[in-house]
Amino acid sequence: MSEALIEDLPSGPLDEYRKQSNFNWKSMKIFFEEDVECLGIKMRMWNILSKDPLFSRSHTVQTTEEMKKLAAKRLRRYLQYNFFPSDISSIPYKKRLRLMMAVNEGLALAFPDVSLKHAVGVALVKNTLATLGTERHEHFLEAMWDGKAIACIALTEVAHGSNTKQMKTTATFDKRTQEFVIHTPDFQAAKCWSGNLGKTSTLAILFAQLIIDDQNFGLHAFVVPIRDPRTLLPYPGITVGDMGEKIGFHGLDNGFLILKNYRIPRENLLNRTADVTTEGEYESSFSEPGKILGAALENLSLARVGIMQGSVNYLINAVTIAIRYGAVRKQFSDNGNDTEFSIIEYPLHQWRLFPHVASAVVLKVFINFFTQDYLDAVELSNTSDRLEEVNYLVSEIHSIICCAKPLITWTTQHAIQECREACGGHGYLKAAGLGDLRNDHDPTVTYEGDNNVLQQQASNWLLKQWHNLSTGKKIESPLLTAQFLANHAQIKKRKYRKADDFRNPKYIMDCYEWLITYIIEDTASTIQNFLSRGYSKFSAKNHVQVYRSCIMSKAYAELNALRHFWRKISELPSDLRTVLTNFGILYGVFNIDSRISYFYQGGYCEGPHMVHEVKQTILDLCGELKPNILGVVDALSPPDYILNSILGRSDGKIYEELEKSFFNNQGNSDRPNWWSEVIIENAPDFTHRRSKL
Amino acid sequence: MSEALIEDLPSGPLDEYRKQSNFNWKSMKIFFEEDVECLGIKMRMWNILSKDPLFSRSHTVQTTEEMKKLAAKRLRRYLQYNFFPSDISSIPYKKRLRLMMAVNEGLALAFPDVSLKHAVGVALVKNTLATLGTERHEHFLEAMWDGKAIACIALTEVAHGSNTKQMKTTATFDKRTQEFVIHTPDFQAAKCWSGNLGKTSTLAILFAQLIIDDQNFGLHAFVVPIRDPRTLLPYPGITVGDMGEKIGFHGLDNGFLILKNYRIPRENLLNRTADVTTEGEYESSFSEPGKILGAALENLSLARVGIMQGSVNYLINAVTIAIRYGAVRKQFSDNGNDTEFSIIEYPLHQWRLFPHVASAVVLKVFINFFTQDYLDAVELSNTSDRLEEVNYLVSEIHSIICCAKPLITWTTQHAIQECREACGGHGYLKAAGLGDLRNDHDPTVTYEGDNNVLQQQASNWLLKQWHNLSTGKKIESPLLTAQFLANHAQIKKRKYRKADDFRNPKYIMDCYEWLITYIIEDTASTIQNFLSRGYSKFSAKNHVQVYRSCIMSKAYAELNALRHFWRKISELPSDLRTVLTNFGILYGVFNIDSRISYFYQGGYCEGPHMVHEVKQTILDLCGELKPNILGVVDALSPPDYILNSILGRSDGKIYEELEKSFFNNQGNSDRPNWWSEVIIENAPDFTHRRSKL
Repeated sequence: MSEALIEDLPSGPLDEYRKQSNFNWKSMKIFFEEDVECLGIKMRMWNILSKDPLFSRSHTVQTTEEMKKLAAKRLRRYLQYNFFPSDISSIPYKKRLRLMMAVNEGLALAFPDVSLKHAVGVALVKNTLATLGTERHEHFLEAMWDGKAIACIALTEVAHGSNTKQMKTTATFDKRTQEFVIHTPDFQAAKCWSGNLGKTSTLAILFAQLIIDDQNFGLHAFVVPIRDPRTLLPYPGITVGDMGEKIGFHGLDNGFLILKNYRIPRENLLNRTADVTTEGEYESSFSEPGKILGAALENLSLARVGIMQGSVNYLINAVTIAIRYGAVRKQFSDNGNDTEFSIIEYPLHQWRLFPHVASAVVLKVFINFFTQDYLDAVELSNTSDRLEEVNYLVSEIHSIICCAKPLITWTTQHAIQECREACGGHGYLKAAGLGDLRNDHDPTVTYEGDNNVLQQQASNWLLKQWHNLSTGKKIESPLLTAQFLANHAQIKKRKYRKADDFRNPKYIMDCYEWLITYIIEDTASTIQNFLSRGYSKFSAKNHVQVYRSCIMSKAYAELNALRHFWRKISELPSDLRTVLTNFGILYGVFNIDSRISYFYQGGYCEGPHMVHEVKQTILDLCGELKPNILGVVDALSPPDYILNSILGRSDGKIYEELEKSFFNNQGNSDRPNWWSEVIIENAPDFTHRRSKL
Repeated sequence: MSEALIEDLPSGPLDEYRKQSNFNWKSMKIFFEEDVECLGIKMRMWNILSKDPLFSRSHTVQTTEEMKKLAAKRLRRYLQYNFFPSDISSIPYKKRLRLMMAVNEGLALAFPDVSLKHAVGVALVKNTLATLGTERHEHFLEAMWDGKAIACIALTEVAHGSNTKQMKTTATFDKRTQEFVIHTPDFQAAKCWSGNLGKTSTLAILFAQLIIDDQNFGLHAFVVPIRDPRTLLPYPGITVGDMGEKIGFHGLDNGFLILKNYRIPRENLLNRTADVTTEGEYESSFSEPGKILGAALENLSLARVGIMQGSVNYLINAVTIAIRYGAVRKQFSDNGNDTEFSIIEYPLHQWRLFPHVASAVVLKVFINFFTQDYLDAVELSNTSDRLEEVNYLVSEIHSIICCAKPLITWTTQHAIQECREACGGHGYLKAAGLGDLRNDHDPTVTYEGDNNVLQQQASNWLLKQWHNLSTGKKIESPLLTAQFLANHAQIKKRKYRKADDFRNPKYIMDCYEWLITYIIEDTASTIQNFLSRGYSKFSAKNHVQVYRSCIMSKAYAELNALRHFWRKISELPSDLRTVLTNFGILYGVFNIDSRISYFYQGGYCEGPHMVHEVKQTILDLCGELKPNILGVVDALSPPDYILNSILGRSDGKIYEELEKSFFNNQGNSDRPNWWSEVIIENAPDFTHRRSKL
């Protein structure tokens, strides 16, 4: 692992805090980057982009139309650069995917719209074609590999998102012409939100109800040409457009699509799992069930894994900005003293920010190493013939993702807001970067599975394991994330004792196991109670979301994150391990505190002692972590070109940057060209002294 | 009270829910509006503005420069309209202020940038001149009344916001020329963030350290001409400009200002409280101490009261959008059934939104009636000669505001985010309105006193009352907000019993009194502990913020809000009172739940019962409130022209509006004019069938 890759940080007002840290931040950086090759490929890309004027990071104001144009041009240029090694196609699957993910992470940090245009328009479509298509779709796939098409994925409809089964778009087989007739029955069935669809994509992977002779065979995927690639004009029968302004992601052209009896060849059905014969017979093909499961996992989850990686990077950016600003910004002094304190010295400010730094630390390590588990699972499902095991593995990975994506994206969303507030007024400047982080991050909590809906899926998996246990079956948890439930009788007997030590990672994990076990049992019995009162299963499950299933999912997600974290940091040299252990503990106790009422409700503790200890541990840790906080943030953070915040610069020269920003911004100091339209007639000139007094 | 003022709501998909409510929403609306005159003046304004093309509510994309121009032109037009009654100057103080506030509220809801330009550039400056200035500043005041000047208030500096004492701008008296020489020593002392300063204001009320013969007499206010009103060009010696792009409030030109030995006449010092004689003598004038206190209260607090009013209105807008959308949007059905449920039917969705509706209800009533207390206090302080009483009153009002502004603005901020998420993907559209609400509301949590700093001031006041008690002095609480502390011995003895009823407003208030008493006592003793360990008072107070002072302030703010609420609704007819009581209870128990750990920590309860009851009460209330939720939102919400959300329309026709929005937006369906710059060369045309298979 070469630390030589990493440049020293510039000297400045942050030196005072950097000197206090007692570990090598470059070694820690390499640990956070997981893989020196992944870091290398990103740094090469950043270096090249930083010299390309098309990728300059200005805070100049642009119209949405200009941002869309810029994103489209950047995507073209990005594809031309081709940052992957020339032998990328021969690199083994896992390594290849990891490198591709690293490049995507590096791009998404600075150019989220370009990254998303690429992810949905190239990467995901390639993947869908490769996994749901067959040899007859190779010409599409080839075109994607050669950069000859930008596509989009058209699933969501105006009136249906989460409930995909109720999609109304139909694909009716016409045996006479051997075509599918794609049709949008009304505006509520218009496809929408598809990235690239608004202005630029020429192909769509479209999901529609497959109809043969009035029989509905359910949702299937079709390749639908929508625009002429030579003119970018839509084909007849296609109504397509941009959805208009959004809260963020301004460069992404999210579109809508209405098809009026639009015909595509029969072969455009992606027929890996099912096909329609020339005779109009529907045929399922379950010849390779493991592969189908793997493909399903990959298609469902790849985007979510990417969202989690990107979200953690946004979290890192936010805390980097707020911590560096907090170290430089001084305000108030002790009585009669003129020397003001850096605001990071105040316990309240530490408490507002350090738990978010702890989240960044734990979740960065988690998502790195969970990505490996995920890729292992995909690989195994593509090669193993032990169907049951693959089935269990796919379900478990799915449940981990379904609770981790909400955990990570909500954590980041809250952290960005707190960081913006912790930077005070200056945090409200666009050039601080926090507004764009918040607005571009915002959709992650509702897209690729609404967080609340995903959490329910994770809790369903946990409840199934609980049900298995109570009916004498085994827990289907090949990754062992739920194996502890087998121990439920012992776990439930645990009680808080005064000697329990929140500084002990093992004890924190014990608390989590108790909490999850308690909530699962309570949830399962509450569901039973509803069922016995005549509620349907659907309704009963809806009635246990609040205070039960949702909390179960969140706690399970945190348990998974911490488990990966402890395991990974155990391999580190002691200086790094010691520092990181404290961040892990802060993460754990902070989250335990937010659910402390369950420990009382479930009889785990009584009296004031546990809650007092938890809160005191948090306060103590905030104080103890202060000397290392700058170093940890330096190890997490990307270079200035990528961070692009006047408040978060690695040299700490925030006032110099503010000054430049005020004076260099186009037109800031000019009289507006509309001045004559707003001056007030006969306004007095107050520079003339009055003789009144 | 005439309900005839209020139009019926249009029929549509919301009828189903509207029919379920069991009260007259128009009567409730009049209650929420407080005063039929206030409602009338707003409706008249809205009616006029809605017909003026300059005030059209389009979602058309504009550059920041265009938005600044538009805001400046709108402000001019708004001043020309003059929505106040012609006899405004003869209306008694309280009534006059309330009407002015109503107009401001009405404007701020739809045109926050125009409202803020007016508030800081006209209203606050007028007020400052009237209260801090004397007869020698009448020509300035006249000009403001006549709409002949747009000013700004220049207090904050680049490196100092909260700590005003450390401002570095100086105003040095030059006896020879009878002038003050205003000087900005370095960029960190540049004035910044002043609204209107960026592009348009011609005058500044500037705060600077007053220096005479090297002696610093502290911060004083001066009138400083900065731009020539005939040309809008800055005067020599003035460097002024716009701060550049922000997260929101795009129409407001926040500026910076650097003065290089810039001279103003001696008379431009606002000399109500202190003056400098022609001989260079500094003279305090304490001739009217009550008035001075009143003036200070008015100047400090008027802006904060306005922020709270505006923030509650934003909260109302956000919940209106999400509740109406949730009633129309359907997703998922019970097994084997095609009829999907409105998402508002799901307990989780209710729990996500209804507590925010409860906040809107309670805080709207609170801010209306607290505004009366505030105006009474200002009036009393201007007329009373009982100095001690006025002093206490001013302090108490200040403490109520210092905790209410954080409570309200944070509540709104969280609610807007939840509402945006509860509207799913469509909530991410600009036309949904939630993004602009969030971005324009965002600065309220850090400006006019950072929320965390303000909270500390409120807790200091409470601690002072506690100290009074423990030293045998009386509680200085003429408004009786802290009078309950006198009862502390009894309050501390309270314990939770199973018979306690969370449906009883009185019991909720008992819980609050216990909570605040417990935290104050704990905080006071912890401060003593720190002091005895050698901490300075400053440091000790900083160490009790987390988990103590902050929580104390929040709970005290909620107690004040609920107290006003119960008192006011007690005057209502029983149909309204019954509904509103339940919203008040939901507000109370929801917030008690979020601090339940203190009840365990302080020994108020033990075992599972209390937390279980609290949570169950919340869940039950959500279910019970559902039939009335639409009606309450209708009673709270402004007309569609003001709400301006495709998802929140009063006719519930969200899909029709989405369709219009997709098709009517300029350029949505056009090929972009940059199409030829991004097409891919030699891209295959996939509409030509392949003969491959």
